[in-house]
Amino acid sequence: MSELTIKGKAAKDASKILAQLSSDRKNEILKKAAQALMENTEMILKENELDMKDAEANGISGSLLDRLRLTEDRIKSMSEGLMQLCALNDPVGDVLWMKQRSNGLKIGKKRVPMGVIGIIYEARPNVTVDAFGLCFKTNNAVILRGGKEAIHSNIVLVKTLQNILDKEGIPKEAIQIVEDTNRATATEMMRLNEYLDVLIPRGGAGLIKAVVENSTVPIIETGTGNCHVYVDSEADYEKALKIADNAKTHRPGVCNACETLLVHETLAERFIPDICKIFKEKNVEVRGDETVKRLFSEAILATEEDWATEYLDLKIAVKTVSSFEEAVDHINTYSTGHSEAIVTESYTKAQKFLDLIDSAAVYVNASTRFTDGFEFGFGAEIGISTQKLHARGPMGLEELTTTKYIIYGDGQIRK
Amino acid sequence: MSELTIKGKAAKDASKILAQLSSDRKNEILKKAAQALMENTEMILKENELDMKDAEANGISGSLLDRLRLTEDRIKSMSEGLMQLCALNDPVGDVLWMKQRSNGLKIGKKRVPMGVIGIIYEARPNVTVDAFGLCFKTNNAVILRGGKEAIHSNIVLVKTLQNILDKEGIPKEAIQIVEDTNRATATEMMRLNEYLDVLIPRGGAGLIKAVVENSTVPIIETGTGNCHVYVDSEADYEKALKIADNAKTHRPGVCNACETLLVHETLAERFIPDICKIFKEKNVEVRGDETVKRLFSEAILATEEDWATEYLDLKIAVKTVSSFEEAVDHINTYSTGHSEAIVTESYTKAQKFLDLIDSAAVYVNASTRFTDGFEFGFGAEIGISTQKLHARGPMGLEELTTTKYIIYGDGQIRK
Repeated sequence: MSELTIKGKAAKDASKILAQLSSDRKNEILKKAAQALMENTEMILKENELDMKDAEANGISGSLLDRLRLTEDRIKSMSEGLMQLCALNDPVGDVLWMKQRSNGLKIGKKRVPMGVIGIIYEARPNVTVDAFGLCFKTNNAVILRGGKEAIHSNIVLVKTLQNILDKEGIPKEAIQIVEDTNRATATEMMRLNEYLDVLIPRGGAGLIKAVVENSTVPIIETGTGNCHVYVDSEADYEKALKIADNAKTHRPGVCNACETLLVHETLAERFIPDICKIFKEKNVEVRGDETVKRLFSEAILATEEDWATEYLDLKIAVKTVSSFEEAVDHINTYSTGHSEAIVTESYTKAQKFLDLIDSAAVYVNASTRFTDGFEFGFGAEIGISTQKLHARGPMGLEELTTTKYIIYGDGQIRK
Repeated sequence: MSELTIKGKAAKDASKILAQLSSDRKNEILKKAAQALMENTEMILKENELDMKDAEANGISGSLLDRLRLTEDRIKSMSEGLMQLCALNDPVGDVLWMKQRSNGLKIGKKRVPMGVIGIIYEARPNVTVDAFGLCFKTNNAVILRGGKEAIHSNIVLVKTLQNILDKEGIPKEAIQIVEDTNRATATEMMRLNEYLDVLIPRGGAGLIKAVVENSTVPIIETGTGNCHVYVDSEADYEKALKIADNAKTHRPGVCNACETLLVHETLAERFIPDICKIFKEKNVEVRGDETVKRLFSEAILATEEDWATEYLDLKIAVKTVSSFEEAVDHINTYSTGHSEAIVTESYTKAQKFLDLIDSAAVYVNASTRFTDGFEFGFGAEIGISTQKLHARGPMGLEELTTTKYIIYGDGQIRK
């Protein structure tokens, strides 16, 4: 049997026991897990050091290397993440509704764990602990398949968590990490329908695409955000400047950052020079259409590709539009369905924008940067779904559950 | 461009207009569509006759031929199906919740159409009209890919519906049928991610398997039901006989029919002869373990395969178990996750069964035959999901929708 078959089977078995844990018991264990991370800081840092050395030897640098690095503070923050989960409302076991049919059957819809969740991700060891916390809080077993760059860190984190589970008499297969980080194990995981109930990829566009194209396990597509801000002819000028600036520059490397700014032509002569000046001060490269180039000479002429690109960087595409409808069409053509905002004082256009834009989060007069589980008040987040099935937008604990129908009868048969 | 690309693009365009139809307008059109079916009965029957002749020439017979056949009554019943949809509550547009965050942002979760739904099915022309009604009522465009045996019937039904849409100024691409019924078009449809938001297969296990294995479009797996009834040691004897009989024999060809009966050994000596006598009277073939064979000599000795088979026929597998736990394990091992029932007067075992069985519908003291959109009070059904993502159990109108977050701000930016 392959590593994945063995771990898949073990996870399935574990999930049956996990499904029966009460909220109190789960929270007790999360607290102990949080404590164990703190107590094992030294060992975790030592293993992380091995990954860091390998990464440097392999010429990895910049933000990738930074994401891989663990520090005392970062371990503390992972530990606090687990503590915070304890405080969240437990969705598992809630009966969403129950009704009595005319034949006396009582039919209820109950929230239950998924079972076994697979997560494929890149070189971010913090995802290892996050994913465990979210899955454990929802009574699910999780199989993690992280990037090879983080393998030492991931193994030590998983062992630390498994030790606590073991001590507490909970099957340690509640969390497992795939140790063979060959590409083949990722592919095998995408076909592990017998054991996995859902597979969630977390990472860049390339990873997501590979999972969408190859997985037969039901997946939740996350993350890619080619987000838009549209400054309407009836926009409040100051709000528009603030929102466009914030959506692009507050944190350019994340999925809810703005990638294309659309400006109604009636405002263009004044607005484009003003916003481009702000962008210039913050080192944002502007790629614009002919009008933008005329109004801000440093702009690079945008190509078709720019409208479709998620830069995740200090770059922005800027386009003038001659109508509200053109803005809506542009967005629905190029957007990845993540987050889009309109800035307008027009009641009718605000409502129409909310109706017509086909994205997970649609804003009136606010920055797209708010699309986030914490900002939405979910208290935790496993990712942001850009698909329409099961979950759309920020996914909290509820999205890691499914439902079943429970039916109380007293001998009813079908006539 | 291929037929599917053309139809996919047209459906996507149509879906944007469909998304804006009000409930009143949708119901008006459903009523006219229902009327049009009645008025075109003669033409529909003529085209169906062509399919019937082809089918007979190709040696198709029995229930397959029966499903293909349209009659005046069946057309009337399809028409009535559309009328009944008008009366149902429209889920689209409902805001499920809206809350105000501490920064003043008002965040709401709103129910919206999926967009474009694909349905792959076999030779059942009634699905054509059903699927249109359900998708139209939820503001979705639908692309249908039915079996080649029903192609004349499907084309005439779709044309009849399209004519009405056209007359009413609604894009007729709200419903389209794939006319090329080669296997290649089914495969192409499974990869039409650019235009399809979801793909629902409706049909036998072979069709479902092919779609699960090949689709990159998000799917909802439907239908396969290896359902169980477990007669516990503390069962009410008469209820147990009635429920086991009803679950198997009321309509053996459907997915919520019982395929395996589990009997606690303390009841076996009396119960097995009694229930087998009923089965014999109704021509149900019994395949049982050694104990069953001893108690009912006409039983065929069951093999491992019998426990895993969905007969959809007058056959049943019967097994004795020595404990409640053995019954639960057997069910969670062999079940397809559709519907399972326990017959017991024990409060504790009833609750435990509801908790431990990992299926879409779990019953205490009632027949599995109730797993059905109409019986659950949804008023309509597009199928029964046996997966855990998005929808589980009978799928009504709500399951054909997704949600989006709508956010009302007054200039909020992320700090």
